[in-house]
Amino acid sequence: MFTDEYYMREALKEADKAFAREEVPVGSVVVANNMIIARGHNLTETLNDVTAHAEMQALTAAFSHLGGKYLTDCTVYVTLEPCPMCAGALFWTRPHRIVYGAHDPKNGYLKHSPTLLHPKTDVTTGVLADEAATLMRSFFEKRR
Amino acid sequence: MFTDEYYMREALKEADKAFAREEVPVGSVVVANNMIIARGHNLTETLNDVTAHAEMQALTAAFSHLGGKYLTDCTVYVTLEPCPMCAGALFWTRPHRIVYGAHDPKNGYLKHSPTLLHPKTDVTTGVLADEAATLMRSFFEKRR
Repeated sequence: MFTDEYYMREALKEADKAFAREEVPVGSVVVANNMIIARGHNLTETLNDVTAHAEMQALTAAFSHLGGKYLTDCTVYVTLEPCPMCAGALFWTRPHRIVYGAHDPKNGYLKHSPTLLHPKTDVTTGVLADEAATLMRSFFEKRR
Repeated sequence: MFTDEYYMREALKEADKAFAREEVPVGSVVVANNMIIARGHNLTETLNDVTAHAEMQALTAAFSHLGGKYLTDCTVYVTLEPCPMCAGALFWTRPHRIVYGAHDPKNGYLKHSPTLLHPKTDVTTGVLADEAATLMRSFFEKRR
């Protein structure tokens, strides 16, 4: 327990929920003191809102839980490399760490600039990346 | 009427509302067929949510008005150069045009990458920039 794999598996459960709703399957959890304080999955189709990415849902839930808008003591787990919008939101909220799974060469923030995340945020990548990538592939194959 | 200055003045009215709430004074309006279909101002303190920037509020209101999540026929006006988060949100929603006022060398998207906005979006800058910059300056001087 309390490993990156453990929390990423919880983020993958969120991604599964998105998949079941026919949403691009991305999930996220926010962890503080080893506890999951917020969860989110992509809801852009359901809410008809491009800003409703998994991380944005999880961040907003975390602010609501903590009563503050900085996540300096938190780790944010997300199954896919954040897009620039989500990286920008993560910048503003300054989490201690971000852990993501699969890379997203097409839409990820690294395509634009590694400076989009806050310099004080540690970044760990590739955790359960295969599971996250397989889920994404299944989704897009099903839609073809 | 129907000029960039006219709509930017409406965005400045939104920024004034933010100022009155002791929020960083940024405002935004979304225009389709010469009509303002959505308005927003910065509410990060009020909502305790870093994602509650003026553009994000206006975009979400526009999606709700249009019942769609693409703003291909819209122009988005914002008093200040968007930050990377807002530029990323604007990317996803692909407005025909973005018009902004003052530059934001510290927190604007251009500091990171001009590719953050969608390549199909035309960008006009500097409209009523002095008014927007003066409002920002008054806000930060008041807080000192």
